Amino acid sequence: MKIVECVPNFSEGRREKVIEQIVAAMVECPGAQVLDVQSDQDHNRSVVTLIGSPQAVVDAVFQGISVAAQLIDMDHHRGGHPRMGATDVVPFVPVRGATMEDCVALARQLGERVGSELDIPVFLYEAAATRPERRNLADVRRGEYEGLKEEITTNRDQAPDFGPTVVGTAGATAIGARPPLIAYNVYLNTDDVNPAKAIARAIRHSSGGLRYVKAMGLIVEGQAQISMNLTDYRRTPVHRVTELIRSEAARFGLAITRCEVVGLLPTEALIDAARFYLQLADLSSDQILENRLSDEG
Amino acid sequence: MKIVECVPNFSEGRREKVIEQIVAAMVECPGAQVLDVQSDQDHNRSVVTLIGSPQAVVDAVFQGISVAAQLIDMDHHRGGHPRMGATDVVPFVPVRGATMEDCVALARQLGERVGSELDIPVFLYEAAATRPERRNLADVRRGEYEGLKEEITTNRDQAPDFGPTVVGTAGATAIGARPPLIAYNVYLNTDDVNPAKAIARAIRHSSGGLRYVKAMGLIVEGQAQISMNLTDYRRTPVHRVTELIRSEAARFGLAITRCEVVGLLPTEALIDAARFYLQLADLSSDQILENRLSDEG
Repeated sequence: MKIVECVPNFSEGRREKVIEQIVAAMVECPGAQVLDVQSDQDHNRSVVTLIGSPQAVVDAVFQGISVAAQLIDMDHHRGGHPRMGATDVVPFVPVRGATMEDCVALARQLGERVGSELDIPVFLYEAAATRPERRNLADVRRGEYEGLKEEITTNRDQAPDFGPTVVGTAGATAIGARPPLIAYNVYLNTDDVNPAKAIARAIRHSSGGLRYVKAMGLIVEGQAQISMNLTDYRRTPVHRVTELIRSEAARFGLAITRCEVVGLLPTEALIDAARFYLQLADLSSDQILENRLSDEG
Repeated sequence: MKIVECVPNFSEGRREKVIEQIVAAMVECPGAQVLDVQSDQDHNRSVVTLIGSPQAVVDAVFQGISVAAQLIDMDHHRGGHPRMGATDVVPFVPVRGATMEDCVALARQLGERVGSELDIPVFLYEAAATRPERRNLADVRRGEYEGLKEEITTNRDQAPDFGPTVVGTAGATAIGARPPLIAYNVYLNTDDVNPAKAIARAIRHSSGGLRYVKAMGLIVEGQAQISMNLTDYRRTPVHRVTELIRSEAARFGLAITRCEVVGLLPTEALIDAARFYLQLADLSSDQILENRLSDEG
């Protein structure tokens, strides 16, 4: 049985009743589970994590987008986070038995429905993008709601993948597919932020480090921390990031005191680490007992 | 949903038709899956791995024991492996959502049925044992079929936990509960067997090493190997065994070239290793995405 995750971001983080109604519309769909709802007042944004069978998740998210379009007026939305729609971003993530291609297909299917049934412009992004310049979400969202409202009618390059070439009060929505993201923090045995900042610079993609790592150095409860997003753990695995940090820390005479995962991560990311450290060159997923359980159990 | 594994050992490894009939009786039970059948001609013994819901597994194994009792005559059984019955040993193993206590209860339930419905003497062993001297399977099976046949009628200490105090042609059966066993091999960068033997002695329980490790050193395809059974990976985890070997190998100037798992292992054993090496002190099983999937998915 295929399982996918979807993490729709809604442009409402303050009015609890509105958030509740959006979530309620998604909870009502059988076969999809709402795992988590995180609302941020400063960003005025809520991030919902759903999981379930592909069709159930698409149906649930469609209901959420529909309710958000009714209850959120982007002309009155203010918040610290860049955004272009009531439902701002909808990434599909393969979890179990599902591939990235499956998630791309789901993104397109949902995009088509949102465009035609809800009259909301939809831009496909990341693995679902139809043009290279739309792969990066930041590029798709440049100008935000206010900018897009002007540009979409005049600039041909801004034509959406689905839906009208006019932006209503629900704004526009970016729908895409991406690998699971792991929020990963490494703590060092120091209260000095400078080594953490230097190590973050050394390991992150933007300044010359590993391709799928975003990182910054900071102090958390008096301890230096390298705070990261690992955006594709299959290509830049957790163990490689950890060992690179260990090596960079050693040049300052520092050591890792502990690491932490914030939120969820897939089992596979941990199994990959075990495979590396235990040098299990030939371990196949068939050898993992739980993988042998068929659906009828 | 609770999932248990059961690994019945049958005293037939040569007559394919007999093995097929025993396995067929178990395959027919809905809710239990036969994952593996390993027959050894020298040992004249077959090891079957089943998995499924507790009740389905008990029912399936009961059918297998019943057919084995009809088709195997222990008076005519010869083989290299110690044995006392047509169905010789039946260990239940907790896999997912099930505890050792659940497996002890299953062992007792199956033992009661085998004793009363099939008239086969049953000895409970390991975690299911009713007396300390029956915990160790080797002690229960001492004297084998031939010895037990004599002793069971005269020696009160040999009275079975269930069934008659007389041994028929199906012999007696040991039924118990134990943790999952991991067959784990570590290879060294040498073709000399002596360091492998020395390291095996250093790490195994019997000669002063780790409590739940059985180990021997040998040469496999020209390479030194430490071949192990890890009999309780929760108490003696894979990473600790591996790091102890690494440390002992270093005194010979040797390194680990690779490790391997033979057969199956539970995901938990790999996650424990990742938790150790990545120093994930606070990782909870709730953070693993797949664990959040409810049964209705």
